[in-house]
Amino acid sequence: MTEKNLTMLTDFYEFTMANGYLEKGIGDRTAYFDMFFRRVPDDGGYAVMAGTQQLLEYFANLHFTAEDIEYLRARDCFSDAFLAYLKDFKFACDVWAVPEGTPIFPGEPIVTVAGPMIQAQFVETMVLLTVNHQTLIATKASRIARAAQGRTVLEFGSRRAQGYDSAVYGARAAYIGGCHGTACVMADRDFSIPAGGTMAHAWVQMFDSEFEAFKAYAEIYPDNCIFLVDTYNVLKSGVPNAIRVANEVLAPMGIRPRGIRLDSGDIAYLSIKAREMLDAAGYPDMQIMASNSLDEYLVRDLLVQGAKVDSFGIGERLITSKSEPVFGGVYKLAAVEGADGNLIPKIKVSENVEKITTPHFKKVWRLFDKETGKALGDVLCVYDEVLDESRPYTLFDPIHTWKKKTVTNYTAKPLLVQLFNKGQQVYESPDIEQIRAYCAQQMETLWTQITRFENPQTYYVDLSAKLWEVKNHLLEHCGAL
Amino acid sequence: MTEKNLTMLTDFYEFTMANGYLEKGIGDRTAYFDMFFRRVPDDGGYAVMAGTQQLLEYFANLHFTAEDIEYLRARDCFSDAFLAYLKDFKFACDVWAVPEGTPIFPGEPIVTVAGPMIQAQFVETMVLLTVNHQTLIATKASRIARAAQGRTVLEFGSRRAQGYDSAVYGARAAYIGGCHGTACVMADRDFSIPAGGTMAHAWVQMFDSEFEAFKAYAEIYPDNCIFLVDTYNVLKSGVPNAIRVANEVLAPMGIRPRGIRLDSGDIAYLSIKAREMLDAAGYPDMQIMASNSLDEYLVRDLLVQGAKVDSFGIGERLITSKSEPVFGGVYKLAAVEGADGNLIPKIKVSENVEKITTPHFKKVWRLFDKETGKALGDVLCVYDEVLDESRPYTLFDPIHTWKKKTVTNYTAKPLLVQLFNKGQQVYESPDIEQIRAYCAQQMETLWTQITRFENPQTYYVDLSAKLWEVKNHLLEHCGAL
Repeated sequence: MTEKNLTMLTDFYEFTMANGYLEKGIGDRTAYFDMFFRRVPDDGGYAVMAGTQQLLEYFANLHFTAEDIEYLRARDCFSDAFLAYLKDFKFACDVWAVPEGTPIFPGEPIVTVAGPMIQAQFVETMVLLTVNHQTLIATKASRIARAAQGRTVLEFGSRRAQGYDSAVYGARAAYIGGCHGTACVMADRDFSIPAGGTMAHAWVQMFDSEFEAFKAYAEIYPDNCIFLVDTYNVLKSGVPNAIRVANEVLAPMGIRPRGIRLDSGDIAYLSIKAREMLDAAGYPDMQIMASNSLDEYLVRDLLVQGAKVDSFGIGERLITSKSEPVFGGVYKLAAVEGADGNLIPKIKVSENVEKITTPHFKKVWRLFDKETGKALGDVLCVYDEVLDESRPYTLFDPIHTWKKKTVTNYTAKPLLVQLFNKGQQVYESPDIEQIRAYCAQQMETLWTQITRFENPQTYYVDLSAKLWEVKNHLLEHCGAL
Repeated sequence: MTEKNLTMLTDFYEFTMANGYLEKGIGDRTAYFDMFFRRVPDDGGYAVMAGTQQLLEYFANLHFTAEDIEYLRARDCFSDAFLAYLKDFKFACDVWAVPEGTPIFPGEPIVTVAGPMIQAQFVETMVLLTVNHQTLIATKASRIARAAQGRTVLEFGSRRAQGYDSAVYGARAAYIGGCHGTACVMADRDFSIPAGGTMAHAWVQMFDSEFEAFKAYAEIYPDNCIFLVDTYNVLKSGVPNAIRVANEVLAPMGIRPRGIRLDSGDIAYLSIKAREMLDAAGYPDMQIMASNSLDEYLVRDLLVQGAKVDSFGIGERLITSKSEPVFGGVYKLAAVEGADGNLIPKIKVSENVEKITTPHFKKVWRLFDKETGKALGDVLCVYDEVLDESRPYTLFDPIHTWKKKTVTNYTAKPLLVQLFNKGQQVYESPDIEQIRAYCAQQMETLWTQITRFENPQTYYVDLSAKLWEVKNHLLEHCGAL
């Protein structure tokens, strides 16, 4: 999967614009683009960055094959000079991105691309597609894992994913966000996401009886017995047959079954009754897994109802983020080099105030309280500003500027890391276990006011005084256009 | 894309079960699986089949590489005999599927796989993933195209797709369902889905003024001018600048601009006003394109409000089927060869009546009225039943059996075509233009009662008397388990 050439996965207008910049002699001027998002899915308080490793691979592999160039030539709208440029394409941009697993918030750059206009524009579609998808799923997984309160959560959604990559990269993003594994074999083979699974209803139906089916399974996989108990009747047939096989097949081998799985019906009621039956039969260590169109809300409700569930298999509602299947990241011009070489901040205005962009080539700092380790807020600065940790810093709301908060005793860390310097890769992705652990650790830096499901507090994403002035100056003057 | 090896894109339990069937000596027994779905997304009256061509390619390419086998061996739970079986894997199933572009309905087989249990079980995940995704998007596209009432609909959603394949195969499915093109270049290169596009807001911002930006574009692409007019102010700046460039740059070349695009704001109001301005300026032939988080409901409402829109660009709400992002197809065992070689119908019961499966190896007929050409209903039969078109046929509701309808003067056509015969491919996919035209033609066979958005009639999907008896016999007897 990592050798895929995704260069041509782009919107056609990226080509018409790129060719146009070259034709107009401005292709080499430096442009600064930011990817950011405007609101968190499911009205949550945070999102979880994912996809940075695939961005790295995309940029590193960016090239046009002879076939690609022939395809473009046949479209009969691109200049020979442009096609020659593509043939000898050499990526030359600076790229910064938030490391995977980091909590991110609306209005702040999560990817910044600076480089020749022709290139920085071109990569828009893939930057958005990559980060929007994986961030969507990592964020959903983080919510489900929180709802499960430490119980195991497994991603089971491949069959309902929106396309092949959605299954595989979705499993990867879900693992980063807090899932403990997946059912997807390819995600294990290619990304080392632990994959597992036991039996479907069809297995049970293939044999003359449910008992025969469980017995056959236990004989082959004595160490990995999770019996699917709802093919016929959970309490009258499934659980009793699981116990019988535990007694008759596994006990003589000295092996304890891992558990049972409930895939339909009233999970709260059935899990409580099944727990009683397993305990009474001498199997308090058999786990109960539930997997029936669950999401964070149903998981939370099941636990409130006292459901005796030890692990959750989450399918379609995770792999598609069903309750909100779009992460609305956008990629907007922030600044451009003028004909004189000066940096010109650019703003996109809109009648919808939320859609106004924050101009300029920026740097983002996250402030952490030294005592608690908690994140205090993020500050967007002009790229060359220095944030002096030894002095108190006053955060202020960029819209309601009278809302202020002065912080002391903090450390300030850059939110984004540099991936490419003039086209040279200067960052190596951590491995998937490191990313997942980093995510768990970073989530601990958020107050629960931010992470709760209902009406979370809005995390501070503020502008430095200097950047605020640049933005307001542009807003005052854009009426002139 | 077509050479992808997706063999390992499967749920882990497909491997544990396959290995188990082999170990238990029943791997070669013939099993019959059906894919079907239970309800239409968005409470619609029909879905549009898509993904059959990718199923063909998947089955034709099914094989395990040495690396795949090493991966499985390292999992330490599969027998050497099984790994040897995979090494020499030879696909041996019969496969039937509904041709792409055909309207399909809940409760009927849309894919049937019959073959060695070990194989027919294994392919479950990919059959579902492929057909669920593309059918979801083709169905959504069909709805949006209907709402647009013949106006052009373009798929613009790559940046918000759920993964790379979702963008490309989504564009393909959208085209089958009724879209006229896409913005996705890779979908054009690989699947000949016509791709197009002109400019983003960034293009407009790169120049010193909106006029300069439009002028530059017109000079390079005089034949392909669709000016994006909402970067600053649609009516005060965007439309006047588009007209000025049409007059000053294009008119001297004798070229008419294609149109303008509105990407924000009140599309109904702005399009009506822009239409007046373009007409008054002598450009009644300039088209107005709208593209602002639209779906079938918003398109319908815009037209009800008298919006002057000639074409629609549809993004995230199409490429993710946002209002309902899951097509819930399932893959269930319908029959299995017994130890004596006899065919044993299998049923999956459930407390939820809707979830009870229809057992047996089946054949599906669609009846068409000879006079009107309209579809009358689908009939599920036992595989060896013959439907005699020369005699009246009485459809009856499988649940409310007193609901009957006798049809005469009809033709009966098999709904599914055979793709593989004992592992040999016996079907070639039509090309994409043929599929799209077939879809449009097939949609004409549905009464508008079926295709309307609100409370559509339920299309008849009935069982033959013989099949109904098989099902009821099994239901009566499954209490015994």
